[in-house]
Amino acid sequence: MEQKKIGAVYLIPSFMGEQSVEVLFPEYNKLIISKLNYFIVENARTARRSLKSICSDLRIDTLHIQEIDKHVDVLPIDAYLEPLKHGYDIGIMSEAGMPCIADPGNLFVAKAHSWGATIVPLVGPNSIIMALIASGFNGQQFCFHGYVPLKDGRLQALKQWEQQAVKFSITQIFMETPYRNMLLFEDICKVISPQTKLCIAANITLPTEYIATKTVGEWKLQTPSIHKQPAIFLLGT
Amino acid sequence: MEQKKIGAVYLIPSFMGEQSVEVLFPEYNKLIISKLNYFIVENARTARRSLKSICSDLRIDTLHIQEIDKHVDVLPIDAYLEPLKHGYDIGIMSEAGMPCIADPGNLFVAKAHSWGATIVPLVGPNSIIMALIASGFNGQQFCFHGYVPLKDGRLQALKQWEQQAVKFSITQIFMETPYRNMLLFEDICKVISPQTKLCIAANITLPTEYIATKTVGEWKLQTPSIHKQPAIFLLGT
Repeated sequence: MEQKKIGAVYLIPSFMGEQSVEVLFPEYNKLIISKLNYFIVENARTARRSLKSICSDLRIDTLHIQEIDKHVDVLPIDAYLEPLKHGYDIGIMSEAGMPCIADPGNLFVAKAHSWGATIVPLVGPNSIIMALIASGFNGQQFCFHGYVPLKDGRLQALKQWEQQAVKFSITQIFMETPYRNMLLFEDICKVISPQTKLCIAANITLPTEYIATKTVGEWKLQTPSIHKQPAIFLLGT
Repeated sequence: MEQKKIGAVYLIPSFMGEQSVEVLFPEYNKLIISKLNYFIVENARTARRSLKSICSDLRIDTLHIQEIDKHVDVLPIDAYLEPLKHGYDIGIMSEAGMPCIADPGNLFVAKAHSWGATIVPLVGPNSIIMALIASGFNGQQFCFHGYVPLKDGRLQALKQWEQQAVKFSITQIFMETPYRNMLLFEDICKVISPQTKLCIAANITLPTEYIATKTVGEWKLQTPSIHKQPAIFLLGT
């Protein structure tokens, strides 16, 4: 009996807001999506809308869309990936931008690797790398720290990142929940030296995109309007 | 007298090898390129070919293309950016993938920021972020180290990165000159614990794309064929 070939996992970037398809995705993504029947997504409603926008002739109601519930202790990884074993391909999709960066999609990818599945990342927007290249900072060495610690060690973390940026020219990238952006900005102004450079990149790829690099001293004279705007912060040289 | 508005800098991703335009770039990139007359590029010959492939109706011979000479002590940053001051937009382009990551493009961006120019990163392929999402490793915290040190501290660096990956779940990303990939693989096998996970992502976006995540112990039983292939290495959990 012929052994069924295991399916592939496609990592599908999604919208970052209300942009047009032509700004964000290569035509090829549409071709891939049009061939898939199984999806694992961060949010089913936004995923359906995103899939339909990228690939307008998609019959959404015939698709198998599994949502990742972040509030459960044990994710149904094997169950969601089961179609792979029957030779079907699966698409993984985040709520915004590239999957597997700030969502548990990577756990599904890890399992698929252990089954020997082919993993195919598609081209699309990613705010971390786009902020990095637009910052003017060193792109040869950089660290992404995710969200800044809320309380314990918050200011120490910022000081330590500044040291890594200034002393070793390792660009430090981090973010904050959008409604706390201004608090983070104030903390940065409090502990980071006025000579150190800070890049703030907000609303990347959106018509309201705002990217500026200044010294912290200069920023203090011109507070950015980033309250509730998705933003990336970078310290660098 | 009306003051001339300063131009914008567009960061234009280019090809990673012999793929089709439709796989790599959103349609929007073509629109931007078609409006630009000034370019700062890593390699003029490959840039011309890349620009023509993305935007077939471009009149290449009418463009002002300035090449970044990496062998000079002082880059002509102000001179190359001069058109910005006259209100012209400029495109910056690397030899492969996203600009300003492994080329001195960031120095031009930094200067443009200091002049108050708008910097616009365009969507395109980047092997670091694509390798990261396809690895199955933690995408919430990661470090990119660029090239592995050649001699001094080489094995110590690998050991230290392993510790960061295993102890703190910070994904460690690094690379090597392609013809030394197999030497790096041997060094990894020498110093990294057999239980630690290694992802090797080679020829990203190419038809020969190869991405696999295994423990170092498993890799020792199945040596990858990555000699002279552009590859990204990741240690993670």
